Amino acid sequence: MTSALDAQRPTTLDLGSARALSCRECGHQIPLAAEFACAECFGPLEVSYEFGKITRADIEAGPKSIWRYRGLLPVPADVDTHPNTEPGMTRLVKADRLGAALGIKNLWVKDDTGNPTHSFKDRVVAVALAAARQLGFSVLACPSTGNLANAVAAAAARAGWDSVVLIPSSLERAKILTTAVYDGALIAVDGNYDDVNRLATELAAEHEDWAFVNVNVRPYYAEGSKTLGYEVAEQLGWRLPGQVVIPVASGSQLTKVDKAFREFGELGLVEATPYRIFGAQATGCSPVSTAYKAGSDVIRPVKPDTIARSLAIGAPADGPYVLDSVRRTNGAVEDVTDEEVVEGIRLLARTEGIFAETAGGVTVATAKKLVENGKLDPDAETVLLITGDGLKTLDAVEDKIGPLATVPPSAAAVREALSRR
Amino acid sequence: MTSALDAQRPTTLDLGSARALSCRECGHQIPLAAEFACAECFGPLEVSYEFGKITRADIEAGPKSIWRYRGLLPVPADVDTHPNTEPGMTRLVKADRLGAALGIKNLWVKDDTGNPTHSFKDRVVAVALAAARQLGFSVLACPSTGNLANAVAAAAARAGWDSVVLIPSSLERAKILTTAVYDGALIAVDGNYDDVNRLATELAAEHEDWAFVNVNVRPYYAEGSKTLGYEVAEQLGWRLPGQVVIPVASGSQLTKVDKAFREFGELGLVEATPYRIFGAQATGCSPVSTAYKAGSDVIRPVKPDTIARSLAIGAPADGPYVLDSVRRTNGAVEDVTDEEVVEGIRLLARTEGIFAETAGGVTVATAKKLVENGKLDPDAETVLLITGDGLKTLDAVEDKIGPLATVPPSAAAVREALSRR
Repeated sequence: MTSALDAQRPTTLDLGSARALSCRECGHQIPLAAEFACAECFGPLEVSYEFGKITRADIEAGPKSIWRYRGLLPVPADVDTHPNTEPGMTRLVKADRLGAALGIKNLWVKDDTGNPTHSFKDRVVAVALAAARQLGFSVLACPSTGNLANAVAAAAARAGWDSVVLIPSSLERAKILTTAVYDGALIAVDGNYDDVNRLATELAAEHEDWAFVNVNVRPYYAEGSKTLGYEVAEQLGWRLPGQVVIPVASGSQLTKVDKAFREFGELGLVEATPYRIFGAQATGCSPVSTAYKAGSDVIRPVKPDTIARSLAIGAPADGPYVLDSVRRTNGAVEDVTDEEVVEGIRLLARTEGIFAETAGGVTVATAKKLVENGKLDPDAETVLLITGDGLKTLDAVEDKIGPLATVPPSAAAVREALSRR
Repeated sequence: MTSALDAQRPTTLDLGSARALSCRECGHQIPLAAEFACAECFGPLEVSYEFGKITRADIEAGPKSIWRYRGLLPVPADVDTHPNTEPGMTRLVKADRLGAALGIKNLWVKDDTGNPTHSFKDRVVAVALAAARQLGFSVLACPSTGNLANAVAAAAARAGWDSVVLIPSSLERAKILTTAVYDGALIAVDGNYDDVNRLATELAAEHEDWAFVNVNVRPYYAEGSKTLGYEVAEQLGWRLPGQVVIPVASGSQLTKVDKAFREFGELGLVEATPYRIFGAQATGCSPVSTAYKAGSDVIRPVKPDTIARSLAIGAPADGPYVLDSVRRTNGAVEDVTDEEVVEGIRLLARTEGIFAETAGGVTVATAKKLVENGKLDPDAETVLLITGDGLKTLDAVEDKIGPLATVPPSAAAVREALSRR
């Protein structure tokens, strides 16, 4: 699949301290390449490393972006000299008011809405682009229904690459605009997301210079989510939190935050204190939560029906590994209704001034439920990952909120409106 | 006007190194208070300081937000210990592709879309809130048609303050939602923005505990824009740029960036090299550009008619001071049509992957025009300020962009669509 690419590839493939792709199922290793499935057992491939010595001072002296962790990612050391969107180092906010509302004493919110296209997807796409450049690709591509489309189109524009973004033609006009503005090849496909996804896999096989970030370079792309974990630990003052609540779509992000915490401990960058990982799903698409609660290892695919569309993956590829992470760390997976999701968005906005997309509402509402059912320890230091922006999912809150009152332009009318509050 | 407040005020008013309010017109000074107009001549009041010694190392060791410059702002030294949105330290992006398109050799974009509510207003509101707390206020308020409403409602929510935000009732639904979500008192007023503004001034006089950020605490609020200038200089490696292009609404931002550059020079934080300041307006609301071109000192108010609504202030309070800054630094003011604004938004997105609101389109298109008419030196290091996010002004680009094609789910159809590109 990759042989014809070899001619175009840089003579020395420099992916930093990455050394091989390893099958998560059977452990079979292959050299670094644009592969995503094990030739032996069809299991998913993951990047393996041989890390050199990395110190806190090295990281602190690095760029104010995910590239401060470049020594821990499958990218070359000069990655930040190529034009890129410079994502990461988003705010970690002490959330005392939300904590009081949820009954959690020591609560933090990682606010990834501050990324260039306002979701964590800028992190994974930036790593995918850097690896794709090394692997000899020249076009950045993806199937997507939203955040990923934005991130791919923007990253390609910034790098001067062509992009091909495939979306279902039924996508809301606003989501189409926020990708189309970057002027790549945005193709609307008459079909649902599954159709679009299948088409991407077919096109990836046909076009040797197209890097579909979440298909043929997925092992590299996925590593970008580790930076969320690294940043949380560094921003806490080089310490792991006691608990972290993470939304689950494919499940990749949750497993990579787990990997980041373990790596930081193994490298001595933090004390390897115990932590618990919690997964958050919308009830309308909760295959991992269902499996967790049933004590099963098997993820049974579902047909998604939830307003949390960025989490609506009915057959989550990393679902089994989410169960591993959660069970190993003594965490849990929980799910919440769409009504609770909207309440979660509103609670976070009201208490902390952060407007999250539906996935953020899932995280907040799940944290609330986990406190109520006793699974989350209200006394342990806890971090919630808010991974996308409410400006992109206005439709979720549209019917629930609005002005307090509409009044004539008089001070008396304003006073009267406020008195009725 | 402020005497009744004295009882509620902290016994020691701590506004850092701020020492007085000075009239920009007649120089008359009054003690620090919630005043905005000179009692002698009705001129605008501005904060004066007695700066202590401030080093680069002090600033670099500070928080990764505007509070690293707290010693240069009218806020107490412990400002960052109070919950706030932690704005600032947004990306300064080397914009080689945009530079190539504009014919500018050494171009940077300051991307303020990364702020908490995705515009520079988070900076000014954070400073207003910090000063308002010291001045004894307990409610944060504003009249606004967009970005400021978002920023005030979010900052108040985060701080646990009540907020009162007044908007024209005709505002687009999306803009209402993005403020309403923070659950302050959002009041829609049947009238235009001028009506809303007048109502704010009336209410500010009536309610001693309401800090209208852009009315009764305006001198403090306006200082927040200095942080844009400080960050540009620090992020360039403690150096002033040769040229900077800044959008002009009230004109306050432009004059404060000028002030920031001068202060950095006077304090020895940068070498006081010459710089030129350029103002950017939309032709449909270009009173400052018109006065500049006419060689006049008088700003003649206009009735705004432009898609760049965040710049649509027909009678800009700081217009004369914009003319001063621009003329003193050998810059210029220029204006561009709505069509050029949209082209500016698209050019920035296509070349750098940054999606700006209409004000950003004004800045980019103005830079283009200034190169073409020979006013901007294409060989000097140049910075464009992008102060707000395209997600908030989707209507401006709506009719101009969309998918390349809509196709059935087949690889052949995608290939065919791309070949027609």
